[in-house]
Amino acid sequence: MRCLYFDGQLKYRDDYPVPAPAPGEALVKVLYAGVCNTDREILAGYKGFTGILGHEFVGVVEEGAGWEGRRVVADINLGCGRCPRCREGLANHCRSRRVLGITGKDGAFAEYLTLPCANLREVPPGVSDLAAVFAEPLAAALEICDQCHIRPSERIAVLGDGKLGQLVARVLSLTGCDLTVVGKHPAKLALLDGLAATATADAAGKEGPFDLVVECTGSPAGLAAGQDLVKPRGRIVLKSTFASDAVLSSTLWVVRELTLVGSRCGPTSAALRLLARRLVDVEPLVGGVFRLADGAAVFAPPGGLKAIFDCRIP
Amino acid sequence: MRCLYFDGQLKYRDDYPVPAPAPGEALVKVLYAGVCNTDREILAGYKGFTGILGHEFVGVVEEGAGWEGRRVVADINLGCGRCPRCREGLANHCRSRRVLGITGKDGAFAEYLTLPCANLREVPPGVSDLAAVFAEPLAAALEICDQCHIRPSERIAVLGDGKLGQLVARVLSLTGCDLTVVGKHPAKLALLDGLAATATADAAGKEGPFDLVVECTGSPAGLAAGQDLVKPRGRIVLKSTFASDAVLSSTLWVVRELTLVGSRCGPTSAALRLLARRLVDVEPLVGGVFRLADGAAVFAPPGGLKAIFDCRIP
Repeated sequence: MRCLYFDGQLKYRDDYPVPAPAPGEALVKVLYAGVCNTDREILAGYKGFTGILGHEFVGVVEEGAGWEGRRVVADINLGCGRCPRCREGLANHCRSRRVLGITGKDGAFAEYLTLPCANLREVPPGVSDLAAVFAEPLAAALEICDQCHIRPSERIAVLGDGKLGQLVARVLSLTGCDLTVVGKHPAKLALLDGLAATATADAAGKEGPFDLVVECTGSPAGLAAGQDLVKPRGRIVLKSTFASDAVLSSTLWVVRELTLVGSRCGPTSAALRLLARRLVDVEPLVGGVFRLADGAAVFAPPGGLKAIFDCRIP
Repeated sequence: MRCLYFDGQLKYRDDYPVPAPAPGEALVKVLYAGVCNTDREILAGYKGFTGILGHEFVGVVEEGAGWEGRRVVADINLGCGRCPRCREGLANHCRSRRVLGITGKDGAFAEYLTLPCANLREVPPGVSDLAAVFAEPLAAALEICDQCHIRPSERIAVLGDGKLGQLVARVLSLTGCDLTVVGKHPAKLALLDGLAATATADAAGKEGPFDLVVECTGSPAGLAAGQDLVKPRGRIVLKSTFASDAVLSSTLWVVRELTLVGSRCGPTSAALRLLARRLVDVEPLVGGVFRLADGAAVFAPPGGLKAIFDCRIP
């Protein structure tokens, strides 16, 4: 089958074997798969992954007890199912977890993938294929609401106008909060018309009035920028992952009594409900639809809108 | 009057003028005043303070509308009372705040001090003078419970067996939580008999099973130690302030979905209630009672139990 394979270099291959589902797994024919900044980080060495990239997808089940013919997305973390963390409901944090297209499990930039049936989530009929590709990153945005009580009366800033910042802004706008997205790309900020106020980093000012800041810049400097924007006793949610470390002024953190919340993958079923209720409009975030054979060119330009592979086109 | 004055060097003086209360302020005769690690940090340059040190005290009001003769402790933060933060109830975080013995306001290592009457808290009759000296640091320990929901079913570790760690352990033990204090001084750990389990850092292990870790080591390395001890999705409360910065591995923070909570001064009235109800026994934490004239010698040995000045003894 066709796929995008990474072994230190990104390679388009058309000779990869169709995967055989393990017991309890389904075989899924991939329709569309989206490119995430984490994929670019993997190309830069993050996680030391070898295999087929891609963890955002929508597909149709070809084999899998009771799932045949259903259109699905998935929870991408595969816990071992036996350790104390898995038994406590922390399978996303299982120490020996595999993660689709990120750790120990071939991903979605391919004609087919396999996943445990327990990880599959059926896509409701009213959600388009292209919208369903956003279920995984939209769930990551919703994870903020699972971790933090977001109050409608709060002033909230989202740092970063990229793909994740756009989704986080769409989710937070649903709470009724007073929302500002801080970015530097006028065309991307324009996508937030009617959803959020927008500002450049200079205009957002120092020691700002925000109760909560969500850091989606994808840069280690984002944490320091967040510190400057949040009120005393405020919260900063950190969504970006990258290879380097950020320096935290721990005394400033104590004196201002700030709270930092690290946030990763989220509730996929809730993301599908938001899409089915048409509460979040993701299709304007599609930057283009490409063939797997175009892989290297699609990965090259960083910082664009969501690039999506149509995995059916040769 | 006698006092301990800092202007780059710590000096015992007996020629300092008795302060004159400003409008709205009380004149307080100091009975006892306690030494805090923050005082030692000020000697090392923290906050660039010049003036009389000391912010933990119990005293008797000599002048002050309606307060004369009452035995008091105090909230040590003096907001301006006019800015948006003060009006929102965040006076502890007023940008132009003064802090008793720390920022812009002479402190308690003296025969007399002045404070706004609004900052005074009357000590209930059943609380001894020596116990009342602990109201301020005990309030700082209670601040954790004001900021975080502490569940009785949680496993909690306190890092550090020093003065603050001892108070934090005493407060957290009241919640019924499964509590371990991690320290390196057998004599201090022995003070926790019957209140908490104790362990050395080696025995506490890596990637430990704690839901919440309170960092009271007073060292920048404490944050990294906390990261090793807390569960995924767990919380670390940071209490230590010091001049240097701590390095936070922000990607680890996101991947494990950890929460960091900076925590400083707390609710003084609640601390007095705990003392009055005899729920917290602080007198075993008194390391010795000294004269102000012994000042330099009292400050010299770091890491001991609470040194207290009897400010009445010449």
